[in-house]
Amino acid sequence: MNEANVRKASRQLVEDALIAQVATLDETGAPRVLSMIAAEKEGLRAIWFSTNTSSEHVAQLEREPRASVHFAAWESEPWRGLTLGGRMEVLRDHASRERLWEDGCERFYPKGVDDPDYTVLRFTAEWGKFYQYGTKLRFEVTEGDA
Amino acid sequence: MNEANVRKASRQLVEDALIAQVATLDETGAPRVLSMIAAEKEGLRAIWFSTNTSSEHVAQLEREPRASVHFAAWESEPWRGLTLGGRMEVLRDHASRERLWEDGCERFYPKGVDDPDYTVLRFTAEWGKFYQYGTKLRFEVTEGDA
Repeated sequence: MNEANVRKASRQLVEDALIAQVATLDETGAPRVLSMIAAEKEGLRAIWFSTNTSSEHVAQLEREPRASVHFAAWESEPWRGLTLGGRMEVLRDHASRERLWEDGCERFYPKGVDDPDYTVLRFTAEWGKFYQYGTKLRFEVTEGDA
Repeated sequence: MNEANVRKASRQLVEDALIAQVATLDETGAPRVLSMIAAEKEGLRAIWFSTNTSSEHVAQLEREPRASVHFAAWESEPWRGLTLGGRMEVLRDHASRERLWEDGCERFYPKGVDDPDYTVLRFTAEWGKFYQYGTKLRFEVTEGDA
C-alpha cells in the first residue's frame, strides 16, 4: 500500500471505530493505557472523548498533554491497526461540553451539560502509523487531515 | 465488587483475551500504544508477546522498560477493562524463544526459532486497575498473582 492508500485506510478505520485505546503518562512519566469511547472524529486530525473530571487520566493530562490513541480492527481480514501520536487537551468550556452531550448522559452526569464532573478531551494527532500484514507505514498528520 | 472479585474478574479477562494493547515510551518519553497478540499469560503477573526485533518498540523497550498492558471486553455487558502497569523485558534466549514458538511462525521468521528478527517480550505487572460500570479499583500485583 502506498501512502495515499494508507491514509485512506486509516481514515476509514477511525471513522468506523467506536472504541479507542488511549495512552497517557502518569506523574512518574510511566505509560498507562485504557479504552475510551471515541465520541467524535475530525478525520485523522482530532478525536474527541468525554470522561469524569475526577478520573486519574484527567489530572495526568493537565500536567502532561502528550498522548497516543490507537484503533484496531481485529475482526477484519487482514487485521488493521493505527497508532496516532499527539496531544490531548482538557476542555471544560460550554461549547465543547455541548458538542459531545447526548440524551442519556444525565445517567452519568446528573447535573447536566455543566456538571463539574463532566470533562471533554480533544486529541490532536501529529503523526500516524498504520499496520496491516505486509504494510507498516508512518506518516505526518496536519490540519489538512481534519 | 470487592477486591477479591475484582482480581477474579481481572484474571478471567486476561485469560480469555487474544489481543492486548501495549503502551511504551518513545525516545522523547512520549507514550505510544499498539495492539499485540497476548501469546501466553501467567495469571495477572506476566504476559508474553513476540515481535520483530526490528520493530520500533523493541528499541524503545531496551532503553526504557516501563510499559502498560490493557485488556478490554467491550462485547460483554457490562463491559470490562483492565489496565496493568509494570515493566517489559526483551528476551532473546533460546528457552524463551522456544516457549512461544508455534507451527506457522516460520511464515514470519523463516530462519526458525533462532531467527535474529524474532524477539520475545515478557511483561511483569506491578499494579492493575479494573473498570466495570459501577466499579473502578486499583490493586497491587505481586509474584503470588502468577
